Amino acid sequence: MSQSYHIVPESTHNALVKAAYAARGFDKDECAAAARACALAATHGIRTHNAIKALHLDELFGSGADPKGCVPGAEYLEVESKFTGSVIWDANRKLGQAVAFDAMETAMELADKHGIAQVSVDNAFHYLWGGGYVMDAARKGYIAYTNCTSTLAEVVPFMGKTPTLGTNPHSWGFPTTTAIGYPIVIDWATSTIAMGRVEQFKREGKQLPEHSAVDAEGNPTTDPHQVAALLPFGAHKGYGLALINELVAGFIGGSLPVLRGRSNHAPKGEKTCSSFYFQVIHPGAIDACDFVNERSQAANVRAVVEDILGHGNEKCLLPGQIEAKAAADTEKAGGLLFTTAEIEAFNEIARATGQPEWDKDGFHIFES
Amino acid sequence: MSQSYHIVPESTHNALVKAAYAARGFDKDECAAAARACALAATHGIRTHNAIKALHLDELFGSGADPKGCVPGAEYLEVESKFTGSVIWDANRKLGQAVAFDAMETAMELADKHGIAQVSVDNAFHYLWGGGYVMDAARKGYIAYTNCTSTLAEVVPFMGKTPTLGTNPHSWGFPTTTAIGYPIVIDWATSTIAMGRVEQFKREGKQLPEHSAVDAEGNPTTDPHQVAALLPFGAHKGYGLALINELVAGFIGGSLPVLRGRSNHAPKGEKTCSSFYFQVIHPGAIDACDFVNERSQAANVRAVVEDILGHGNEKCLLPGQIEAKAAADTEKAGGLLFTTAEIEAFNEIARATGQPEWDKDGFHIFES
Repeated sequence: MSQSYHIVPESTHNALVKAAYAARGFDKDECAAAARACALAATHGIRTHNAIKALHLDELFGSGADPKGCVPGAEYLEVESKFTGSVIWDANRKLGQAVAFDAMETAMELADKHGIAQVSVDNAFHYLWGGGYVMDAARKGYIAYTNCTSTLAEVVPFMGKTPTLGTNPHSWGFPTTTAIGYPIVIDWATSTIAMGRVEQFKREGKQLPEHSAVDAEGNPTTDPHQVAALLPFGAHKGYGLALINELVAGFIGGSLPVLRGRSNHAPKGEKTCSSFYFQVIHPGAIDACDFVNERSQAANVRAVVEDILGHGNEKCLLPGQIEAKAAADTEKAGGLLFTTAEIEAFNEIARATGQPEWDKDGFHIFES
Repeated sequence: MSQSYHIVPESTHNALVKAAYAARGFDKDECAAAARACALAATHGIRTHNAIKALHLDELFGSGADPKGCVPGAEYLEVESKFTGSVIWDANRKLGQAVAFDAMETAMELADKHGIAQVSVDNAFHYLWGGGYVMDAARKGYIAYTNCTSTLAEVVPFMGKTPTLGTNPHSWGFPTTTAIGYPIVIDWATSTIAMGRVEQFKREGKQLPEHSAVDAEGNPTTDPHQVAALLPFGAHKGYGLALINELVAGFIGGSLPVLRGRSNHAPKGEKTCSSFYFQVIHPGAIDACDFVNERSQAANVRAVVEDILGHGNEKCLLPGQIEAKAAADTEKAGGLLFTTAEIEAFNEIARATGQPEWDKDGFHIFES
């Protein structure tokens, strides 16, 4: 299916995103991190988690909320720890994107020494798109992982009726660029679908996939108008994966799931924030140096992938392949690719921020 | 549903398991590790991965195969590495259970210093039940994880038609005994069902769940008699999880998936073995020391779990809860619990090994 996009120079995009965050009181480094994360999402065709979503989230739950879920100019503080491969931060509700880039950088440095390293973050605010951080680390040559607890509890535990879990995403990135041309990135929420998809199906008059949502009584429904909460993907298995984020967050210091993002409703003294967890592995630290047929490590990974996608499976996709194609399109176009509706959303942001609107006719068109 | 079990003293069970492994040439330490892993599975009600399965696997793919997939008395060798939080072993096809217990022990020691540590194992042979190793580590106070590549490629990639992936399990254990009374253990294969379930459904004349298997043409089927291969659970998400094991193994040095467990069919020079990956996190190394309302770390984890299983979700189970109930029954009974059919299978093992058969009427009965 062909689609036309407006080619927006990354510098133009970043200038507006920075200005929008600056208008909300964020400092220069935070604005730069915010723009970088949004550009990364747009580069890889992640339309659900670009600048439009980021600024909307900040307005609803972050610097626009009262009390603020995200505090412009906040400094994260390192918590003292005797563990040499581990770093712990109290983010003090600093912008998630800024914290996440720094955390991944810190974990990569530690992994160079220890082979594996982790950064845990308490009192955190939404980092937008976990896939971007692990993809960035994977491009730099590392195996990377992150999970976080979602702002809202929208997911019902397996066999339950009330949403008490976040959509709690997991993101894994693998440094497979030498092997196959791009990083394999496995990145998804632990709900079958996102709440945004429910809204989309309402608008389009469509039924939801089975086993994806429940109504107010906790009964399964495929009618988007009846949806009260989401279900984990894969029954008890996805439920277990959603629990992992809650447990890791619980050990870090995370708040009760149903209170997150609801600071107005929380009993006094309770936290209302998300937690982040980052992990980096140096591929040299898992290399047993016994590759057969004179393969390098990358050649062995390529041989494994080719075996999986051989034997009649040639049409299967690898996770990260669609994003790699989007990145190639972005590079070919020489700018970020946005739809006309997205350009209009950016212009709303421009108007709200006192910035000049974009003239969409001034952008070249890219056919994808 | 009530069920009667014969109570077999763990020492009786372990003596037979050790004798059976010794008869195949395994050394004293290997026999002890094999018995320990089988007893751990039986203690926790894991009927699909007990001694009967372990010895059958060894016969089919291990010391009973030609060439041997598992070599009795083999020594694993440490691969030199500059990374201080990481250990890499060439298992030389040593019995997986012995390697796995040692690997988890090594990772726990390293995690005490670094907060996180990993052990990667090349040239490995089946470790039986990954859940047991992470549960054991969780009982000792650690967050633990393991994955491995399965012996056979039985799973079709998402949108594919030929099985080129293992059922590739993941196992996570959390030290939640202080918080809730037992370790939360999330432990499953990445296929919707196991091939053993397909055989069971054939015998029982039942249809399989949807989206669990395909026929020889790669088309979905619920008829167990038509099943040629399994599907990942949760469509592309389970496929991604199955890929993780293959990728990690590929970086370690693992063989091509379709050759594993098929040493007779492999081109000269190609490996035919599994890989193991172990990871341990010290909970102190992710503790941001900011628990509200004077909670300890364990109390915070308990509060999070109670929030998830509150609000009408009181009937939901936690992963590991059924296994904890089985362990409580085992303790109450004062021995391992086996069905009459299982006692008969043990007696077949006894006869094949030249050991005295068990007199099932000599065992007490436990009603569960």
